Amino acid sequence: MAKRPLILVTNDDGINAPGLKYLVNIVSLIGDVAIVAPDSPKSATSQAITINSPLYVSKVNNHSIAKLEYQLSGTPADCIKFGVNEILQKKPDICVSGINHGSNSSVNVLYSGTVGAAIEAGIQGIPAVGFSVLDYRWDAKFDHMKKIILSIIHKVIKNKLPSNIILNVNFPKSKVKGVKVCRQANTHWEEKFWKRKNPMGKDYYWLTGDFIDNDKSNETDEYALKNGYASIVPIKFDLTAKDYIQTLKKWDFNE
Amino acid sequence: MAKRPLILVTNDDGINAPGLKYLVNIVSLIGDVAIVAPDSPKSATSQAITINSPLYVSKVNNHSIAKLEYQLSGTPADCIKFGVNEILQKKPDICVSGINHGSNSSVNVLYSGTVGAAIEAGIQGIPAVGFSVLDYRWDAKFDHMKKIILSIIHKVIKNKLPSNIILNVNFPKSKVKGVKVCRQANTHWEEKFWKRKNPMGKDYYWLTGDFIDNDKSNETDEYALKNGYASIVPIKFDLTAKDYIQTLKKWDFNE
Repeated sequence: MAKRPLILVTNDDGINAPGLKYLVNIVSLIGDVAIVAPDSPKSATSQAITINSPLYVSKVNNHSIAKLEYQLSGTPADCIKFGVNEILQKKPDICVSGINHGSNSSVNVLYSGTVGAAIEAGIQGIPAVGFSVLDYRWDAKFDHMKKIILSIIHKVIKNKLPSNIILNVNFPKSKVKGVKVCRQANTHWEEKFWKRKNPMGKDYYWLTGDFIDNDKSNETDEYALKNGYASIVPIKFDLTAKDYIQTLKKWDFNE
Repeated sequence: MAKRPLILVTNDDGINAPGLKYLVNIVSLIGDVAIVAPDSPKSATSQAITINSPLYVSKVNNHSIAKLEYQLSGTPADCIKFGVNEILQKKPDICVSGINHGSNSSVNVLYSGTVGAAIEAGIQGIPAVGFSVLDYRWDAKFDHMKKIILSIIHKVIKNKLPSNIILNVNFPKSKVKGVKVCRQANTHWEEKFWKRKNPMGKDYYWLTGDFIDNDKSNETDEYALKNGYASIVPIKFDLTAKDYIQTLKKWDFNE
């Protein structure tokens, strides 16, 4: 019998998020699960890491199906660094992050702590996938995602991924028709800030905004999601705009 | 006489960092300066944004040469969102971020709050450049960078940048031979965590590590910097690994 793969699970909504619990339960069908996740919600922390303050770690046992479970006072990317190097002391066969409560499609991928953790795993040479559902609510539903998540994880374990690529997977809120491999849609947010007064009378601001998708292509993650499909975007972490290097070399910066 | 450009300045070391002061002083030779920067150090916050807590903003006057100066309780990317939408209420001609105390070359770009701010500006359609020097010290020297920074800013204002590209510029610690346009080196960190006890006897961990550069190419930012040049990497924020889409489409996720 083949050895069960070792699966490292993290997220950015914190170790008690229902999305993490769901993911832990279904990946335990495939392999041995180690959880290293933030001790509190760390949404929108991107690939931030903690360098100017210490990290605290506690062994917990909220998910009895996991072989190991730790909560960390840091970010999702910290959880990968600490989980791989201090807790496991070896590379897991795969790292999965999520299931995030809320979209990490299109431009949202850049702010995502869920995907930040997957990228961190990718840098460390671990096949990695971030999973998200387009539902911010704590009581989001996940059952429609189960079959596809298991299929993706099986295939990533079997086929591996190139050392410079991870997968960003998003699901519609309820039903799902199937899977589309996509590119990241070219979108942005038009920010609005709510201005209010706190109990001491001091002004505060709260970030909000309108999501703007002017990308008309049918090859994007937004298009797939709007049409009822799960989107898979292969993403890389060499940010170099290679096509622009020759143009830029013609600008004579030394003149 | 041509109208002076409006230049938005931010950083991740906080509004009182010497690197920001130096950058403000030299860009004021080119245009009108607005500063919107974090009220405390926010190193390694990547493109994190603040969505689960309020933001506080204060008008300050530490840099008398600036036309506007505000400190914000959020991240560098928050500073761009707030600065453009609430303070300026229009797009500046250029956004510059830095001068960061410490390297943001190669893989470090992914963790960088300095570059996170520049990417945020890029998403908003503002030409943007992140500047860093390979010296973490508060008393880092900047004079060797002045001529090249001014050249880069002049050229970006004149030539613009494509709407999906910003520049990541790093400088050697002291002397600089000139400028090289490069790609991001393929590097990683091998993490080590210091384990110590706090005054209450509780274990804490502190992230540290060894920087591993196995990229032997002479086209990388690390190569340029090691050889005494400033590196300029054009970076994009569509993370799609386009070359891998066709391969991935052959994996039958729906089977």
